[in-house]
Amino acid sequence: MSRSIRLAVIPGDGIGQEVVAQGLKVLTSVLPQDVKLETQEYDLGAKRWHATGETLPDAELESLKQHDAILLGAIGDPSVPSGVLERGLLLKLRFAFDHFVNLRPSKLFPNTSTPLAGRPDIDFVVVREGTEGPYTGNGGSLRTGTPAEVATEVSLNTAYGVERVVRDAFERANARPRKKLTLVHKNNVLVYAGHMWKNIFDRVGREYPEVTTDYLHVDAATIFFVTQPERFDVIVTDNLFGDILTDLAAAVTGGIGLAASGNINPTGEFPSMFEPVHGSAPDIAGTGKADPTATILSVALLLRHLGYETEAARIEQAVAADLEARDGSARSTDEIGDALAARVAG
Amino acid sequence: MSRSIRLAVIPGDGIGQEVVAQGLKVLTSVLPQDVKLETQEYDLGAKRWHATGETLPDAELESLKQHDAILLGAIGDPSVPSGVLERGLLLKLRFAFDHFVNLRPSKLFPNTSTPLAGRPDIDFVVVREGTEGPYTGNGGSLRTGTPAEVATEVSLNTAYGVERVVRDAFERANARPRKKLTLVHKNNVLVYAGHMWKNIFDRVGREYPEVTTDYLHVDAATIFFVTQPERFDVIVTDNLFGDILTDLAAAVTGGIGLAASGNINPTGEFPSMFEPVHGSAPDIAGTGKADPTATILSVALLLRHLGYETEAARIEQAVAADLEARDGSARSTDEIGDALAARVAG
Ligand SMILES: CC(C)[C@H](C(=O)O)[C@@H](O)C(=O)O
Ligand SMILES: CC(C)[C@H](C(=O)O)[C@@H](O)C(=O)O
Repeated sequence: MSRSIRLAVIPGDGIGQEVVAQGLKVLTSVLPQDVKLETQEYDLGAKRWHATGETLPDAELESLKQHDAILLGAIGDPSVPSGVLERGLLLKLRFAFDHFVNLRPSKLFPNTSTPLAGRPDIDFVVVREGTEGPYTGNGGSLRTGTPAEVATEVSLNTAYGVERVVRDAFERANARPRKKLTLVHKNNVLVYAGHMWKNIFDRVGREYPEVTTDYLHVDAATIFFVTQPERFDVIVTDNLFGDILTDLAAAVTGGIGLAASGNINPTGEFPSMFEPVHGSAPDIAGTGKADPTATILSVALLLRHLGYETEAARIEQAVAADLEARDGSARSTDEIGDALAARVAG
Repeated sequence: MSRSIRLAVIPGDGIGQEVVAQGLKVLTSVLPQDVKLETQEYDLGAKRWHATGETLPDAELESLKQHDAILLGAIGDPSVPSGVLERGLLLKLRFAFDHFVNLRPSKLFPNTSTPLAGRPDIDFVVVREGTEGPYTGNGGSLRTGTPAEVATEVSLNTAYGVERVVRDAFERANARPRKKLTLVHKNNVLVYAGHMWKNIFDRVGREYPEVTTDYLHVDAATIFFVTQPERFDVIVTDNLFGDILTDLAAAVTGGIGLAASGNINPTGEFPSMFEPVHGSAPDIAGTGKADPTATILSVALLLRHLGYETEAARIEQAVAADLEARDGSARSTDEIGDALAARVAG
């Protein structure tokens, strides 16, 4: 285990800055004395784009590469045309650093709100493919803006890309007590990509005889997310379906304020990047209303990825205890961060 | 108004046969004496495919065209490779008959179950594009089955196709008391198609100053489906997003046993097709457990489309009253059909 962490920090837009500050506070508090934490902040996002027109210059991409991990707040602002920062910064990072495992755990903690009656027992993790599918930016528009316009979006899928993420998901399922893995796709309509996913899933599955598998179409999966979420253990799915399912998963497990994610490059060739699932929420930026818990849970994923399992678990336990102890009174971003930093302190 | 209805009936697979029988029972019961109903049944689906290898021969497509409308039960069986019947029969019909408006109303009736705590007031309709997007079958697979396989799925979108469905949705929103229309897409990632949808939506919207509009990314929309479904009135969206959202909508409004749909060709050039949103449910076929209500509500949509507004409303009121009167004891497919046929009888 390395006893130093070189962390790149991209606070980004809106509430990004605020939640990242709390994430760093908790990180500092949980780390053993002898671990040296070096952080370097990167000024990327809407402000930078307005000032310079840049989203992610090559020099900064190179510089980011020199770190052990990246902590990202949130990217996006209504003042920037939709897609510019998403494609030019967030997705560019995920693709450049080959973050093929987009890991999104969902757990319904006690004493948190869920729109679901009966509070089912929810504890699953979505392994979302992160570098292929409809997210490749492949497509175009012809005769743009005219009545004769044609626009395409191409979902690109490779056996190489699918097998590695499916294998990662089987490993994760195999390491969990219930050992269950569900493939979600839409192979009755998207037959080319869908059948490839299913065939690879079946083939790799034969190497994991202890893992129970099943398959759901994405539309049916959304039904089970609200009627029977306890049936899920690990889910593996494509980039776009994973995007949709993990927002829904967040909604049924305490809301987007608690949903953490890791954009992971399991080979270690590039730094992995950790970020809350929520966006930049410009409407509440600066009000102190942002819940930093999702970012703090993302820090736990970051620590686990770097080999600090004890510290990761300590954060997760602190979050569970903190939520359990809540009395319903509103707390500021800072107060939640302070409470969690105190709980994890060694 | 025509005083005869030439109806094509495709019972299909699994519970399709059973629910369609109840749909026809209620249709016969609600129609005024002087309306002549001529039905013609088509043997299409899994059994036919196993027997002959055919999904939808040209002669039958031609013959179906001669009808005023089509009532379809459900298509699909695990014994048939995934995609064969969906692409070769169901989607073939939607595309051949230019069903560009896939209409899917969602309403939470009293005394029905919802997984949502607090029983929000849900009453919206999704206008799902039916002839474009990722459903066109455009794509392919290279080096199939090898480690070097590449599979693509191409989402095709045209200004022609988007404008007509967006216009239809504005008309529907304008005719409803709340006059609200939400566009759902993912234009921060699928920038080519997404921006075209948004630009056309904004442009057509200027012709409907009384309609309030908003835009949501599909992932965010799923959150609101479970946390704030009452915010929706009319939703217009792409073929795949509509598929996903309407299953989720069904799940939060009494379940898939109540969700009706119409595949509508508004120009009247081709017959429109009405079907429950649910599938063929082979696991309960023959047990009498299938709920025919979704099919019966689809018959209401069919009648409205053909100009029988009074009869359509009568069915919808009967369903509401029937659900309200339920005492929780299980009823068979037949019993529900009988109860509704009795309620709508003139
Ligand atoms: C902001 C957007 C590009 C992103 C995505 O679609 O992946 C977000 O929704 C997410 O889930 O991280
Ligand atoms: C069976 C399948 C092809 C179909 C679809 O994806 O449109 C179904 O899910 C639906 O929603 O009608």
